[in-house]
Amino acid sequence: MKELSKKVLEGDIRAASRLIRNLEDQIPNTYIAMQEIFGKTGNAHVVGITGAPGAGKSTLTDELICAYRKKGDTVGVLAVDPTSPFSGGALLGDRIRMLRHAEDTGVFIRSLATRGAMGGISKAVGEAIHVMDVLKKSKIIVETVGVGQQEVDIINHAHTVAVVLVPGMGDEIQALKAGLMEIADIFIINKADRDGAGKLYKETLNMVNMSKDNKNGAQGWRIPVLLVESVLEPIKFAESVEALRDKIDEHYQYLIDNDLLSERMRRKTTAELNEALWGTILQPILKDLHADGEINRLVDKLLTKASDPYSLAAEVASKYMK
Amino acid sequence: MKELSKKVLEGDIRAASRLIRNLEDQIPNTYIAMQEIFGKTGNAHVVGITGAPGAGKSTLTDELICAYRKKGDTVGVLAVDPTSPFSGGALLGDRIRMLRHAEDTGVFIRSLATRGAMGGISKAVGEAIHVMDVLKKSKIIVETVGVGQQEVDIINHAHTVAVVLVPGMGDEIQALKAGLMEIADIFIINKADRDGAGKLYKETLNMVNMSKDNKNGAQGWRIPVLLVESVLEPIKFAESVEALRDKIDEHYQYLIDNDLLSERMRRKTTAELNEALWGTILQPILKDLHADGEINRLVDKLLTKASDPYSLAAEVASKYMK
Repeated sequence: MKELSKKVLEGDIRAASRLIRNLEDQIPNTYIAMQEIFGKTGNAHVVGITGAPGAGKSTLTDELICAYRKKGDTVGVLAVDPTSPFSGGALLGDRIRMLRHAEDTGVFIRSLATRGAMGGISKAVGEAIHVMDVLKKSKIIVETVGVGQQEVDIINHAHTVAVVLVPGMGDEIQALKAGLMEIADIFIINKADRDGAGKLYKETLNMVNMSKDNKNGAQGWRIPVLLVESVLEPIKFAESVEALRDKIDEHYQYLIDNDLLSERMRRKTTAELNEALWGTILQPILKDLHADGEINRLVDKLLTKASDPYSLAAEVASKYMK
Repeated sequence: MKELSKKVLEGDIRAASRLIRNLEDQIPNTYIAMQEIFGKTGNAHVVGITGAPGAGKSTLTDELICAYRKKGDTVGVLAVDPTSPFSGGALLGDRIRMLRHAEDTGVFIRSLATRGAMGGISKAVGEAIHVMDVLKKSKIIVETVGVGQQEVDIINHAHTVAVVLVPGMGDEIQALKAGLMEIADIFIINKADRDGAGKLYKETLNMVNMSKDNKNGAQGWRIPVLLVESVLEPIKFAESVEALRDKIDEHYQYLIDNDLLSERMRRKTTAELNEALWGTILQPILKDLHADGEINRLVDKLLTKASDPYSLAAEVASKYMK
């Protein structure tokens, strides 16, 4: 593992890919490599892009890569794939994207999926960000489907969060229901040439104006609502994504200038610590129980009502805990 | 706590509401009440209704309540509210629904939200199902927004899973991306009088026919694709939801007749045990760290790179673990 982290610190892309795969697969002792690189992390600007399925996040991220490359930034992309609790494997879209940027060593794209039923995707995301960080990517984009607690956990790893809305998808409902309002630093109205874009723009703006403060911790930051044109008009699309890029960077600069970045870093680091505690304390116990079939014996007891989950959990705890 | 569970076992609705609130708020020692009721659980048929935001799940669930009441079933509904990682509180829609069924003692509706950043919503759902079960509700409907690992965890508590799709929302993408295909026992094409419903119906049917088996564990069950009319035609809507009700019950009967229910119960119980382990082992440690401000001291160490998350987690673990 120390060999692997050494190679990653030297900028070896294949080693970095292997390390990320190990994180995803929750290979034991991967933490040893992560311990080695942790001290070198914390330089990249981490940008979260989130929104409902079908909102066009992938295409947007793809263009944002180009916009950042134009400006001289290097880019890491982590696409968090919710397909995989069952099937595993990356989305076809990511494969295509990887091909498009395959020749560009300034771009590093990986998709991350959950394997197994024991959780830990948010932990893997936080750690994969560190890997991209030590690969000296200056911008790291984390793309998630933004609904549910899990996705909010993931977004805790970002400094700047952009929420993507599209017309015609019942967006008010989307925004309200998903609680996205409270995590957004920037709103994006995607496919802005579609019917209903103007209405959605106005509604979102109203919503932003009504909420006094971004509860996400960046006091005084005025959450902008940006219109991004459809890909059907490539030049306009590129221009509006460049405006988005500049707004994302403006937010980061705002955090720095107003001494707010430290607050974000604290949130981010707290999330990491919580996840490390899960990985160190609970995950090994779950692995033990699954490995020797003990879990089945316990579940049998519950199915026959010979015991209850709380008594069994206390029994397990007494074996491991002081 | 034993007093509370006693009242719940006697059918006291207010006690049940308080118990569910305690579960949601992760009040310590709530497990004592849950221990008391666990032995009486396992009688209800638990139905998961899931799909993207805006798919019309709430309206559908509402009508499904009516359809079940018509047949003489009693109904519990748990609406899992993803708004709340930040703000807490139930959706307006749930309040309205509660009013509509307020006079009917055969219906018990509660929304559940995540409070605090330490997880546990799926645990609370599994436990709230038990509360509704001992209240002798014969059908318990769990409504979630179906994207992400967290929601898959929640759906593990159901015997029958219905996935709601609607035309015009890029549904193929929705279905594929969310991995819903692999958890569905029944597909519902909602708002079937909309443009594109026929196309979506055909695509979904093709998808179902291509996948040999439902990986969800019910071998031989032919996943049906049902069309549900829009609420704009109330009679047709009611009729199609009654057909849905019958199909849901047919699935449950199929599980029983083919000795597959035990498999589902095993999955459900394994999920519960995992969650009880989290609640017994990790959650108290996290609470300790947060209560005495120790978490801030640790995070400071990380922010200054004086240590790394893995070493700190090992340090914490050594205090609690054998």
